[in-house]
Amino acid sequence: MNPDILNERQKATFDVEKLTNILNGGPEKTKRRREIESMVLNDPDFKEEDPNFLSRSERYDQAVKKSAQMILKLREYGIADPEEIYCYKRMFRGNFHEAMGLHFVMFLPTLYGQCDPEQCKKWLPLAESYKAIGTYAQTELGHGTHLRGLETTATYDPATEEFILNSPTVSSIKWWPGGLGKTSNHAIVLAQLYTQGNCHGLHAFIVPIRDMNTHEPLPGIVVGDIGPKFGFNEVDNGFLKLDHVRIPRENMLMKYAKVDADGTYVKPPSAKLTYGTMVFIRSMIVGESARALAKSCTIAIRYSAVRHQSEIRPGEPEPQILDYQTQQYKLFPVLAMAYAFTFVGQYMNQTYHRITGDINLGDFSELPELHALSAGLKAFTTWAANSAIEVCRMSCGGHGYSRSSALPDIYVEFTPTCTYEGENTVMMLQTARYLMKSYRQARTGQRLHGIVSYLNDADQQRIQPQHVSARLTGLDINDLSDLVELYKLRAATLVELAAQSIQKELQHKSQEDAWNNSAIDLVRASDAHCHYVVVKLFADKLGEIDAAHIHSVLLTLARLYALHGISNNSGDFLQAGLLNGSQVLQITTRIKELLSELRPNAVALVDAFDFHDKMLNSVLGRYDGNVYEHMFEWARRSPLNSTEVHESYHKYLKPLRSKL
Amino acid sequence: MNPDILNERQKATFDVEKLTNILNGGPEKTKRRREIESMVLNDPDFKEEDPNFLSRSERYDQAVKKSAQMILKLREYGIADPEEIYCYKRMFRGNFHEAMGLHFVMFLPTLYGQCDPEQCKKWLPLAESYKAIGTYAQTELGHGTHLRGLETTATYDPATEEFILNSPTVSSIKWWPGGLGKTSNHAIVLAQLYTQGNCHGLHAFIVPIRDMNTHEPLPGIVVGDIGPKFGFNEVDNGFLKLDHVRIPRENMLMKYAKVDADGTYVKPPSAKLTYGTMVFIRSMIVGESARALAKSCTIAIRYSAVRHQSEIRPGEPEPQILDYQTQQYKLFPVLAMAYAFTFVGQYMNQTYHRITGDINLGDFSELPELHALSAGLKAFTTWAANSAIEVCRMSCGGHGYSRSSALPDIYVEFTPTCTYEGENTVMMLQTARYLMKSYRQARTGQRLHGIVSYLNDADQQRIQPQHVSARLTGLDINDLSDLVELYKLRAATLVELAAQSIQKELQHKSQEDAWNNSAIDLVRASDAHCHYVVVKLFADKLGEIDAAHIHSVLLTLARLYALHGISNNSGDFLQAGLLNGSQVLQITTRIKELLSELRPNAVALVDAFDFHDKMLNSVLGRYDGNVYEHMFEWARRSPLNSTEVHESYHKYLKPLRSKL
Repeated sequence: MNPDILNERQKATFDVEKLTNILNGGPEKTKRRREIESMVLNDPDFKEEDPNFLSRSERYDQAVKKSAQMILKLREYGIADPEEIYCYKRMFRGNFHEAMGLHFVMFLPTLYGQCDPEQCKKWLPLAESYKAIGTYAQTELGHGTHLRGLETTATYDPATEEFILNSPTVSSIKWWPGGLGKTSNHAIVLAQLYTQGNCHGLHAFIVPIRDMNTHEPLPGIVVGDIGPKFGFNEVDNGFLKLDHVRIPRENMLMKYAKVDADGTYVKPPSAKLTYGTMVFIRSMIVGESARALAKSCTIAIRYSAVRHQSEIRPGEPEPQILDYQTQQYKLFPVLAMAYAFTFVGQYMNQTYHRITGDINLGDFSELPELHALSAGLKAFTTWAANSAIEVCRMSCGGHGYSRSSALPDIYVEFTPTCTYEGENTVMMLQTARYLMKSYRQARTGQRLHGIVSYLNDADQQRIQPQHVSARLTGLDINDLSDLVELYKLRAATLVELAAQSIQKELQHKSQEDAWNNSAIDLVRASDAHCHYVVVKLFADKLGEIDAAHIHSVLLTLARLYALHGISNNSGDFLQAGLLNGSQVLQITTRIKELLSELRPNAVALVDAFDFHDKMLNSVLGRYDGNVYEHMFEWARRSPLNSTEVHESYHKYLKPLRSKL
Repeated sequence: MNPDILNERQKATFDVEKLTNILNGGPEKTKRRREIESMVLNDPDFKEEDPNFLSRSERYDQAVKKSAQMILKLREYGIADPEEIYCYKRMFRGNFHEAMGLHFVMFLPTLYGQCDPEQCKKWLPLAESYKAIGTYAQTELGHGTHLRGLETTATYDPATEEFILNSPTVSSIKWWPGGLGKTSNHAIVLAQLYTQGNCHGLHAFIVPIRDMNTHEPLPGIVVGDIGPKFGFNEVDNGFLKLDHVRIPRENMLMKYAKVDADGTYVKPPSAKLTYGTMVFIRSMIVGESARALAKSCTIAIRYSAVRHQSEIRPGEPEPQILDYQTQQYKLFPVLAMAYAFTFVGQYMNQTYHRITGDINLGDFSELPELHALSAGLKAFTTWAANSAIEVCRMSCGGHGYSRSSALPDIYVEFTPTCTYEGENTVMMLQTARYLMKSYRQARTGQRLHGIVSYLNDADQQRIQPQHVSARLTGLDINDLSDLVELYKLRAATLVELAAQSIQKELQHKSQEDAWNNSAIDLVRASDAHCHYVVVKLFADKLGEIDAAHIHSVLLTLARLYALHGISNNSGDFLQAGLLNGSQVLQITTRIKELLSELRPNAVALVDAFDFHDKMLNSVLGRYDGNVYEHMFEWARRSPLNSTEVHESYHKYLKPLRSKL
């Protein structure tokens, strides 16, 4: 063990294992997680090459191999609980992706959810035995967010009782689905349904795309890989062009909507049936933001503890770079954010399960709020994490650019979350729509409940001058509940500003144009709302923690998270009269003190995330801190080092001399 | 031509060619640039594969081939002017790098600058004929920024008149130099010089590392590639471990410092001789920030003009996404920044050349200011550009993640500028050191000149209440000179805050600890100083432009740049009493108006950067706007599509079924 990092661990003021248990949801969960992880670690079948050393085709090959192995291992070990499967896969995948991911997260669930009993009988055995390997093809080359814009058609032909699937234009080619390029032999295709001369909008169809024996594309199908991307290079995101491809009527997923043999269209009973899945996936992404942050700051903080550089006091040895205030100011707010988002992720997960229970009992009342919250928090946390990963990477100096640090991989694998499952700006505007609706309800005297209840008496709280000055005098920047209150009032102010902007625009514009011309304000309002929710949930979480030493260090993190957010958005607080200039100065000073308070616990706080070295796959983030020898060892394995003299020397450099 | 983008071009209110000429520095320069670019475009020898489709070894191979071709072509065409060479290479390289880059930018210039006449006679012919291909090895595995921390030793042995070069530890292995891994047969190695028992600090030595005929590593040398990175994948950044390697005494670069045959050390006449090169390279990087931004927003704005998505008004066709206020708010500030940084780059280049002239005449007076300015602006512009490239990429939806968009390449090739040639935080602190020194001088009654002269009467301007309220009332947010003034006062305030922080810390801490404990404030002060300089230079540039239509559109950009910066940092302006809350609100409204004003000229403004399609290498950024057909064509060339059935199907997927 590197002596610096050992020393850091000895300085910690709290029991790391206890904090790990809080993060995992209890000691039993920690234990089970480690058991599952050790199944992967101790499995002699899992020798693999760092994907960074492989060509794209080799990376894909290795990923398919791993997917196939994983299926067999999960059966062998009898792991069937979804959470445990997820845990196993996470360890298995490391910082990379599964070749067959879409089969599990979209193809199978869609079959389970939307097949009628006949279809279940046919398709489930095929899909569960991997005879049918599938994906979910919705997005098209020219169409993403706006589902009504999708161009692929499914036209019913009653003469043969078939649907004719067609891609009428280049922009209608299905594009991006994972596993579509080379892996899948079936795709659930979303297409505009035409029957008896009418269009009935998007419906889902099971389309065989490759022969189940030879794996060759079927007639009328042009399918392939969409080429290299920023990340996801082991995944064959694909394209699919359908040239009047005929499938039997029974291949339309018919649990809800139906087309009868004669072409009569039967409407589904409700349009909101997919609401829940979206909420679930977006809630999961909040957790992914927390994980990506936790990984990134584990790497950057451990490396900053063993890296010595420059000097603070002349003549003394080079200090650990974690002793520089600027380094702490980069990394400790990220650490605080990682904890904040972890707790938000836990809350979202619990809330989702609670509300799902209510929904099954027929109570839909909380769904709109959860829908709005999951959309906004998905955007808020992924944007924040996206920037913060890069802050961590760049805090590692040159070595942060090396693939051996894992930080480039963490970034490129994470960044798509800002776009998929709902583009972030669109998500923020969805949340804003809910906030505007709630605001109007409050103005018209309806009493709001839940997380937007702060809009009930927004006017009162802000506008009366005696309130403002009383708040300014009474404010204690060390009191977390005062800070929650500040964020709440900021959110209320920005919601109101957005509503005023719409009102003003409505004087000479249509509702739609007024909305578009207020979009900047609407996104700001959603952002402030989400920020409030995160600070509030962090504070709530502290209320649940008894252990004094842990409570103390988490309180420091929570204060840093809240005050750093205020400092970065001080204009909002000053403009709304929630703070005055000298309080903002106080906050700047207090942030510096909090950085010093956190310094001795920084390594212990990242240790508590309890990432196994294999999961991090980073020479900079090694638990033992022995960075440089392993970086040298890693570099020597670079494929360019397989020969001493690269062939390009003989081909170009040597001949060059004679030409001059 | 796509009709949408044609329509955009017809709406432009100014002559694009005239603006291109301004950006290039005159119509003659535009003409010559295009001539040089067409040499590359029309050369039948330059057929190449998209590097994104190649393995790393193939990418490196192609890059070496191109470097060798380029050398021959430049001779053939007789291009010898450094600026023209740079222009040719830029077209040749596109978004990628040169395998032999370090030979040209570091090895040759160091030989020219630091060889004595004897050494010139020996080494220049070898290097100019590419018999000696070289690199510059300074950074070590464990040491970067702090040169005194470097561990490699060069110990003089008078018995044989040789230096013994040695890497005493793992952390002393030379790491990162471009072209070191496979390409170079020589390296200029920076090492701590020991002679007659004393250490004389870092000196430069020419070390042969590979046999000039066989290219095999020489005895005592362990050399290789450091492995894959985030970008630069066609470059063989390398490592070099020296095990008591002996080189003749004459291989120490002896123009300034010397070691005599008996081991007597002769000091160099001055220590500041490398100052100029650093300033030059950092000034160049400011220009690179502008280019990276210009490329990114060309791609994002053109694509946003042809991409239709969702709806603003129900029932109407999907609008161009450039019509969404949120999209404009993402992209137009980046466009404004691209123009701002272009003008700053021009200014830095001119200033560098002017001051170099002065220095040659023995006048060093402006060097400290230029040094401080180039350090700060390098950090300010690269950080800003780094984030903005990602904003552009994410504004393109899913397709921004495809390598066919070129945006991932632009990002990964650009982001290292935040770290190399001076890590950005270190750069900001260097500028801060100059600002603090200037501030102290002003306080002690010295009259400051140049760009920091605003510190002369900072106190007066801010502290007197009647000034503040007069300024608040008289402020015109449409008047660019008022905005320059605001930025100036903000810089003055933050410089003073940083100075106060140091003063406060000094009450119970040493000078060095006080500095470190004020580092956050110091970076903020430098940032505000640089921001002021950029706004000021943009305003100055407008003063030089006569053509009314162009002046008008550039004024809109300058206003947007300035107001957007105020809005994003409104806390600073409010806290300092430079603005009040209602003015900040006014600014928000004004920004929206500026977005609308820019909307009809957006495409023309990126056209004026005049990037050839081959230079952008982006399907989304194509001049003709025909995006989707070319994206389909590009994808079909993906190596994963070379066979219909990938071998992994037979190896893993088919066998899987029988195992279940």
